[in-house]
Amino acid sequence: MESSRSRRSPDLYARIAASTAAHLADGSQLLIGLSGGLDSTVLLHALAAARDERRWRLACAHVHHGLSPNADAWAHHCAAQAAALGIPFSLHRVQVDTASPDGLECAARDARYRALNAQAQALGADALLTAHHADDQAETLLHNMVRGAGLLGLAGMPVWRPATPARPAQLRPLLGLARSALEACAIEHGLVWMDDESNADTRYARNYLRREVMPRLSARWPRAAETMSGVARRLAEAQTLLDGLADADAAALTTATEWGTAWSIDGLRALDDARSRNLLRRLLRVHGARTAPTEAWLDEWLRQIRAWQPGAECPVTHAGVAGFCHRGLLWLMPEQPPPAAVVWQGEPAIVWGTGCLRFDAVVGRGFASSALPVGQLTIRARQPKDRVCRGPGRPRAGVKQIAQECGLPPWLRDRAPILAVGREALWMPGCEPAPPWQAAPGEPGWLPVWAPVVAQSTPG
Amino acid sequence: MESSRSRRSPDLYARIAASTAAHLADGSQLLIGLSGGLDSTVLLHALAAARDERRWRLACAHVHHGLSPNADAWAHHCAAQAAALGIPFSLHRVQVDTASPDGLECAARDARYRALNAQAQALGADALLTAHHADDQAETLLHNMVRGAGLLGLAGMPVWRPATPARPAQLRPLLGLARSALEACAIEHGLVWMDDESNADTRYARNYLRREVMPRLSARWPRAAETMSGVARRLAEAQTLLDGLADADAAALTTATEWGTAWSIDGLRALDDARSRNLLRRLLRVHGARTAPTEAWLDEWLRQIRAWQPGAECPVTHAGVAGFCHRGLLWLMPEQPPPAAVVWQGEPAIVWGTGCLRFDAVVGRGFASSALPVGQLTIRARQPKDRVCRGPGRPRAGVKQIAQECGLPPWLRDRAPILAVGREALWMPGCEPAPPWQAAPGEPGWLPVWAPVVAQSTPG
Repeated sequence: MESSRSRRSPDLYARIAASTAAHLADGSQLLIGLSGGLDSTVLLHALAAARDERRWRLACAHVHHGLSPNADAWAHHCAAQAAALGIPFSLHRVQVDTASPDGLECAARDARYRALNAQAQALGADALLTAHHADDQAETLLHNMVRGAGLLGLAGMPVWRPATPARPAQLRPLLGLARSALEACAIEHGLVWMDDESNADTRYARNYLRREVMPRLSARWPRAAETMSGVARRLAEAQTLLDGLADADAAALTTATEWGTAWSIDGLRALDDARSRNLLRRLLRVHGARTAPTEAWLDEWLRQIRAWQPGAECPVTHAGVAGFCHRGLLWLMPEQPPPAAVVWQGEPAIVWGTGCLRFDAVVGRGFASSALPVGQLTIRARQPKDRVCRGPGRPRAGVKQIAQECGLPPWLRDRAPILAVGREALWMPGCEPAPPWQAAPGEPGWLPVWAPVVAQSTPG
Repeated sequence: MESSRSRRSPDLYARIAASTAAHLADGSQLLIGLSGGLDSTVLLHALAAARDERRWRLACAHVHHGLSPNADAWAHHCAAQAAALGIPFSLHRVQVDTASPDGLECAARDARYRALNAQAQALGADALLTAHHADDQAETLLHNMVRGAGLLGLAGMPVWRPATPARPAQLRPLLGLARSALEACAIEHGLVWMDDESNADTRYARNYLRREVMPRLSARWPRAAETMSGVARRLAEAQTLLDGLADADAAALTTATEWGTAWSIDGLRALDDARSRNLLRRLLRVHGARTAPTEAWLDEWLRQIRAWQPGAECPVTHAGVAGFCHRGLLWLMPEQPPPAAVVWQGEPAIVWGTGCLRFDAVVGRGFASSALPVGQLTIRARQPKDRVCRGPGRPRAGVKQIAQECGLPPWLRDRAPILAVGREALWMPGCEPAPPWQAAPGEPGWLPVWAPVVAQSTPG
């Protein structure tokens, strides 16, 4: 009769293990970020309880930020917890830039992730596991809302973020669980955890939301945190669809040129405002913009691009990305000063500035290998008095003139590599090796090939 | 030197008039919803101040809900305000269903809009103007967030909602302005307004958010309301893009059949989860669903549709929409019991149930006009013992058999009109008029033509 009451809710440990197993195969190597607080303590113990069944190889890492007077105590506590469970433990001391213009919270997070990601890669871990839960997600949603984010910001943290060349995969198995449920579970299992005294400091926006706003929402809507975490998940799905729409629009506008990929301005003009904004936002992000632009900035850029006429360049920069218009195309690339000179040490390819310079081994053409001994050739940006030989039998010319002749867009002129021996400029993109540096028939040679922008990894 | 300080911010009246003029031409007829509270009082005076320049013809309407002991005082106050400004005023007493399962707030809003929309249409107004402001929008956003809405719910109220056949256009010129700015403006202009005592009742979710949550956000982020109103606007733009994506996906899957439009199940199977959900959500909404489905409901429906095999019907209903699968197609239509019988009074077309029955005037075919005198023919749903003649020279048959022969999907059999005189069933869709009812050569006749679903107006 009382069966529905006497049924216990499934143990949280089992739910956490199941969320983990949904993304990570049996036998995986997992690195757990362990702060010593409630959340990561539950995560550690839940995974430890499942490791035999799942054959997971567990390790945990604690980041010592050197900011709190209690930091040593936390580190000691974490080491002891790990030892008690027989889980390998590593301690990482980081320097946090306390004067960072982005704020202390942001600087500490950056330093923490650098250390955790490096440790995960050193271990060959299949994923880094962090203990963000539904209340964290709800706070992120609220925080981005009062800061005026767009859909992308409101979508919050993903449960699963696939690996990239730069960082390991990241899993947040607690993201659907409320902090109160984690606390009840920790008490039930007799776990011991430490409270970060800085969590009480409401000068930090997140703490303010956690202590002043979330309790008022939970008082009226007890499941507010889980519900809002679900909202963030649905918004993330919407963002995925919009990214797909932007990618399809971008693909239809893509034009391949000798100097890289660009997008048709006429094609962009044919899209309505909302789709154009969605496309430009996505292009900025894919090209590595650190932040999303404001609506006003985006609207002004769109206005300029639509008003483009031959001769105008419409240069803009935003959060590390530079944009230009040229010959009916929109160009985007990482914002960067002219790269510093380097000496060629015989590498077959060098990433130089935003681009890549290849030296293809050829026979009977290119620069004679014997004429370009390793350690003699400098790769550098243009200098005011450079006169470069355009090819066999052709006179030397200035960089600007050569660039115009071969269609190299103006903003690439400071990024294009000049190959020089001593003060003599031998080559730039658009030129051919010429005597006396040219390889004779049958002689081994090096042929320089330049790509202005090397592929970016797409953002998660 | 002090110029930046001494510059006054542009008058709010002018900003409100400009927001209005962005959507409504000079000379337009405008109906203002006037509650007598702060917000609509500012709106009324701002528009009155601009009416000469813009040649707007203004009217205002007050809805008397009969719920508050002060309701008569509000009505009197509003009438006096309007009279003082020389603006035509109308008073509308409505009955609010205090036992509505949707709650009192929702029932009052429904009754209010019915009255305001009717008055706007009676006046031939170009738009109904309501005084929702940024704090209202922020509260809507928060409320939908803690209730677990999707993108559509979070997008909140639009500034401008175009007219449909069922209701006039609606404009919210204050949506970007904070309540505090409106209050400062009202005080500066010496306006008098009334406070609704029910606004203090935190049993209402909106009041709770207004009094308990918003002040905590504004204390830390003073422009929280305007910022969140901007967030809602951006989410609305994202929703518009997703609707466009869904419409494009729907168009690619659309299959026209004799019995109306349906969507290819194989085509749906080729879409990924997120796009399928986006498409199904949109189809439900376009077909008049009163609410959005939960994620779990949508996922289960999607699973059923993808698993469809010949013979399965996968019937579902959601918020007034019925869905079925049949012969590789997904069908949607308004949920409705079999329509009640009606007597044909000679109308050339009758909306009957969800569909439309036309009587096309023809010569030499169809039912002889003389044989079907007006007032004799009944249009009704099938009855168990109906035997219908399929056409000249063919025997009578049951409804199910005829439906199978002509491919009428099973769920349309209870919605298909049977034409009867007395107890005799003369016709159903898929049949041809036969003797003795058939028109002779040269004789005028009526040819019945049935469309199962009449066009829905698309949602705003």
